[in-house]
Amino acid sequence: MKIARFSHAGTIAFGIIDDDELVVLTGDPMFAGYNPTGARLPLVDVALLAPVIPRSKVVGLAGAYFADAAEKAAALAAPGEPAEPRFFLKPNTTVVGPNDPIVLPAASHDVRVEGELAIVIGRVAKNLSVADAPGAIFGYTIANDVTAVDVGEGDGHGARAKGFDSFCPLGPVIDTEFDPADGRVLGRVNDTEFQSGEVSLLAFSMAEIVSFLSHSFTLLPGDVILTGSSSAARQVSDGDTASIEIPGLGVLTNPVRRAA
Amino acid sequence: MKIARFSHAGTIAFGIIDDDELVVLTGDPMFAGYNPTGARLPLVDVALLAPVIPRSKVVGLAGAYFADAAEKAAALAAPGEPAEPRFFLKPNTTVVGPNDPIVLPAASHDVRVEGELAIVIGRVAKNLSVADAPGAIFGYTIANDVTAVDVGEGDGHGARAKGFDSFCPLGPVIDTEFDPADGRVLGRVNDTEFQSGEVSLLAFSMAEIVSFLSHSFTLLPGDVILTGSSSAARQVSDGDTASIEIPGLGVLTNPVRRAA
Repeated sequence: MKIARFSHAGTIAFGIIDDDELVVLTGDPMFAGYNPTGARLPLVDVALLAPVIPRSKVVGLAGAYFADAAEKAAALAAPGEPAEPRFFLKPNTTVVGPNDPIVLPAASHDVRVEGELAIVIGRVAKNLSVADAPGAIFGYTIANDVTAVDVGEGDGHGARAKGFDSFCPLGPVIDTEFDPADGRVLGRVNDTEFQSGEVSLLAFSMAEIVSFLSHSFTLLPGDVILTGSSSAARQVSDGDTASIEIPGLGVLTNPVRRAA
Repeated sequence: MKIARFSHAGTIAFGIIDDDELVVLTGDPMFAGYNPTGARLPLVDVALLAPVIPRSKVVGLAGAYFADAAEKAAALAAPGEPAEPRFFLKPNTTVVGPNDPIVLPAASHDVRVEGELAIVIGRVAKNLSVADAPGAIFGYTIANDVTAVDVGEGDGHGARAKGFDSFCPLGPVIDTEFDPADGRVLGRVNDTEFQSGEVSLLAFSMAEIVSFLSHSFTLLPGDVILTGSSSAARQVSDGDTASIEIPGLGVLTNPVRRAA
């Protein structure tokens, strides 16, 4: 099921994608279940919004991908303790939706985009085993993990570089049935592809990621986990358009604008 | 005015401290103003809670204090660009209230406490000048910035080390009239003082901090900014009691427990 959050005629609501229409729901299906209002709207008549607004955490994994299949094979063959995921936090004020601008802050002259598969948490989750972790996953969406790489050094924690308003486009939908196993993440700036990565190169399974994070803090419904990428982030400039595509999840497109 | 959030007879409410009583309010004064219900409760009859639950950000400053007055004087006399604040984020799931336990996570054997003056934001604030920044400050409270220092290296961003549940005790109240100029932060573990610092050694004014952060992201009502400390954090163990005192703001006391 593909869930969208949208605005239409001055109101914000959730709906389920049904071909080129939206089946409008009475509330947020994460909390209220799937209760159709009876209304249907043509997709072309609505503006899609970020499909979730995290109330607590946007977590981003760092260095979680192998460069290629050979590196993954070598790591899996090596003895010893498996590495733990490393992560950072983005404030929820970074979240924007499809077609919202990525705003280049005045403080930076090197902003980069990076497409990532994102996990959306659907339940309160603490100290979950790997076996129990999938039950906490509500679905998957696409994220653009935007970074102002030239303001990170004065910070030391990445919080500033990755925390500017609009630095976490999410969408266009949450798919509750997406299978990440064969997922591919494609990134384009204007007409140039800069990213083509396979989720199978992730060093951890989705269940391992959720389990590990649930031992670091309580995950809450609406928390979002950006799972990283195997590609170098791509610099963007005023007037560019960044598109992240994950076949099966759709395309997340955002124009890039210099702050006024 | 000293604002408390409390539970009493199964309900949670806000009140204003009046000597040894609470003047109960109809709602959160940050959003609903100061509207007394007419009820008063003896302070000893209620359980104080964290006076604010951030909906968006808990920001912590790092390295923002001078070691002593001589270092501050030398820095102020030096030519050149003033340094910018460095900061990290703690998830809102770290927030607990007075007397709530600081829970030592299984993953760590070196958890440290550190007392800090905290700014509570009261308005949406973006790109504020230093002159306008004080208007965004709702008040001040006490924070204990807890860190599991031995899990930070595997992270690289501090998000894990500072992000465990219960790692941000806040309270006991928000004081809307506190003057930080002569503030002192005292830290004790059991009966041993480990921290005695002066807010005047902070390298930035409260207005400079809020202005700077408001250029990094939109600050929202309820966001909390921990302003750092001039002291080394103190290791704590199961069974300890950590108390942070800021004269004029009160004492924030939390027992320390190993996770079950």
